[in-house]
Amino acid sequence: MPRFFINKDASAPAPGDLFEITGDDARHISSSLRMKEGEKLILCDGAGTDCLCAVESVGPTVAVRVISLSKSAGEPPYRAAVYQALVKGDKFDSVVQKSVECGAASVTPFLSSRCVSRPDERSAGKKAERWRKIAAEAAMQCGRGAIPGVGDAIPFSEAIKAAVEADIPLFCYEGGGESLREVLRRERPGTVSVVIGPEGGFSPEEAAEAAAAGMKTVSLGARILRTETVAQTVLSCLSYEFET
Amino acid sequence: MPRFFINKDASAPAPGDLFEITGDDARHISSSLRMKEGEKLILCDGAGTDCLCAVESVGPTVAVRVISLSKSAGEPPYRAAVYQALVKGDKFDSVVQKSVECGAASVTPFLSSRCVSRPDERSAGKKAERWRKIAAEAAMQCGRGAIPGVGDAIPFSEAIKAAVEADIPLFCYEGGGESLREVLRRERPGTVSVVIGPEGGFSPEEAAEAAAAGMKTVSLGARILRTETVAQTVLSCLSYEFET
Repeated sequence: MPRFFINKDASAPAPGDLFEITGDDARHISSSLRMKEGEKLILCDGAGTDCLCAVESVGPTVAVRVISLSKSAGEPPYRAAVYQALVKGDKFDSVVQKSVECGAASVTPFLSSRCVSRPDERSAGKKAERWRKIAAEAAMQCGRGAIPGVGDAIPFSEAIKAAVEADIPLFCYEGGGESLREVLRRERPGTVSVVIGPEGGFSPEEAAEAAAAGMKTVSLGARILRTETVAQTVLSCLSYEFET
Repeated sequence: MPRFFINKDASAPAPGDLFEITGDDARHISSSLRMKEGEKLILCDGAGTDCLCAVESVGPTVAVRVISLSKSAGEPPYRAAVYQALVKGDKFDSVVQKSVECGAASVTPFLSSRCVSRPDERSAGKKAERWRKIAAEAAMQCGRGAIPGVGDAIPFSEAIKAAVEADIPLFCYEGGGESLREVLRRERPGTVSVVIGPEGGFSPEEAAEAAAAGMKTVSLGARILRTETVAQTVLSCLSYEFET
């Protein structure tokens, strides 16, 4: 069933409520999905509640009435924050899309010493806007109960400072570390963070800084994964271990 | 260290042997990597053996001498065959690249009832050639001990007939099934197959045919993964469970 998110400023939904869907979502419902009166869709309140709704009218705005509420099934029982070093070209687009599909609660770009991509302020703003749109689209498409946030780019040290607060703070490093399985089998986390370097990896100094701050350095096995592959792989293992 | 594969018709390598690297690999060594005499690289025999070599001369062909042999570390202790329904645009490129990185032994495209992409013979040949090149590049980049094969497109029924021979024959179906974790925690497989549908999923008839043939229908959790996301997710879980 098609899913849409309610505007953040809407009040908490209840059965019988009427909602008006506008803008791109309304166009998508009328022109692409060609939905008609009486057909059903899900409005998600972005806070973990799905509202089953019936379409009442279709036009430039689409009116829908809430039939019943249920808990969103698409949210993992843990919050996983991805911290991904800025990467070249459109690779970050793919990291955002795959992270959302695979259960990330947020994706935050950061700048480390070997980052080749160093956008200026204007292009950084444009990119952040595009990533937030990709996150919203992916959340709707895969059935999330909330749209994961995409943060603005921060320096490496700030990323570590935030990431280390998680119950399981993972620092992915090709220079070695414990196996991901060993780390995940020790405890059932409420929060996880996943810190991933750029194409050229982390410098040994950065790896030492992360370890000193309390990050758990993990290895993802014998093969060298591309940077844009790592988030999906780690999130898939989290879901496998704690969600299914 | 840079890795290259020996031509298939080369004899089994031994320390002291001299190999000549030609074509794209030679150009890559001389022009991109700018390697010099005495520098080291790895030649992989594609059958699980890595040869540590020293460069002896660089030119249109590059001569290297084998110093020592070791077992390739990048091959999983199981053989995972991916069967992926043909998908639109360049999504199959990404499936091949990610599958190789994440440990697949082979990737075979197939045609099911809801496949939108149905290339004619000429374009199918061109695509297969591109996918084999992507597989070879990914194998070198991530440190595989063999180049996974990419098969020609086959009908759905043939894919099932081949896939069902694996110790764990997984049929990924959004219509439900056992959780992947339950299935993988029951036995340590020698061979696994992973059958993945197109954008529109499998038809209920195809799911029934697969189950009747003996495939294990598995669910990948509450979120609907895009078809091009599934192979990497399942392969990552296999590696997590059996490899690290």
